[in-house]
Amino acid sequence: MPSIQHSARGHARREEIVRAAIEVIAERGYRGASLAAVAEKAGLSQQGLLHYFRSKEDLLIGVLQWRAETDTGGRDIVADPMSLAATQGVVEANAHREAIVRTFSALLGESVTGDHPAAEYFRIRYRRVREAMTATLRLEWGDRLPSGLTPEEAAPLVVAIMDGLQYQWLHEPESFDMPAAFKAFVRLLDPKAAP
Amino acid sequence: MPSIQHSARGHARREEIVRAAIEVIAERGYRGASLAAVAEKAGLSQQGLLHYFRSKEDLLIGVLQWRAETDTGGRDIVADPMSLAATQGVVEANAHREAIVRTFSALLGESVTGDHPAAEYFRIRYRRVREAMTATLRLEWGDRLPSGLTPEEAAPLVVAIMDGLQYQWLHEPESFDMPAAFKAFVRLLDPKAAP
Repeated sequence: MPSIQHSARGHARREEIVRAAIEVIAERGYRGASLAAVAEKAGLSQQGLLHYFRSKEDLLIGVLQWRAETDTGGRDIVADPMSLAATQGVVEANAHREAIVRTFSALLGESVTGDHPAAEYFRIRYRRVREAMTATLRLEWGDRLPSGLTPEEAAPLVVAIMDGLQYQWLHEPESFDMPAAFKAFVRLLDPKAAP
Repeated sequence: MPSIQHSARGHARREEIVRAAIEVIAERGYRGASLAAVAEKAGLSQQGLLHYFRSKEDLLIGVLQWRAETDTGGRDIVADPMSLAATQGVVEANAHREAIVRTFSALLGESVTGDHPAAEYFRIRYRRVREAMTATLRLEWGDRLPSGLTPEEAAPLVVAIMDGLQYQWLHEPESFDMPAAFKAFVRLLDPKAAP
């Protein structure tokens, strides 16, 4: 018999807990979040929650992995890179999922403070995302972008734009048009792109 | 007689407290920082600290204002915009002041969580910094950048690049070359800029 963690019901329950954790972290940050608050929001006892995630850190990794899978649909984006149009699609989708973007941005900020449990995750993630973005840009333009930059030079800029625009958007979600800003950046990469 | 807060000695003491707060926030974030820890690092009693900053929130605003003045030398960057070269100079200077960048990036992350005392500061700061950057770009290129973008379209991208690159750099300060990455972005803005 499969363990409860790996059964379909266990999987659904883990996702419920992750969604509850996203809401709690968006409100209070990771350091301010308690397992008790997550359990209560998910309609479980704290013991019940610990059945699915062994610790607060384990739950944090669960949240970050769930977010990464939501972005990429689980594909290996280094071996099988997304197109730039698909990247634009991720930015557009993010503009409709404020809670997860808020949680991600809060965790990214916390992760630069002393000994944060997500620091290693973000360090490795950045290397991997830059590598994937390099592959995306090479797929689009070969070894030189229209601006003369190499894919390796441009990749960290795409990543920085995505992270940076999220903060401007989260502070004014009603009036700051994040997808339009990203589209303007794509026109910097390729002045021939449609305005 | 001037009050202690406004005397030269009071000013120097306030700066010592702000520097101590920057170190404590870089380590624990704002929510995790205590006035007791800041006071101890500054060599003051908590009562002594409260003589200079009335509350933890007052100290937070002190840190953010001190950081902004460090970047701009106190000039009004909307009325008297910096050149793009001076902006590049800020990025280069930031690469030599890790603690303040770490504190700023941690506060930016925290500021998107529920009812954070720095949320209003960042909302207003973003409007102002985009306005200042629009003036910088207009000074450099007039109403159209070489890429065809307007200064208004490009300004939020410059701000996003500065914020976003800081996170990549803070996670790998030894190996990620933040000034070189910003310089590559300037080449996107102006393909004729020197590589």
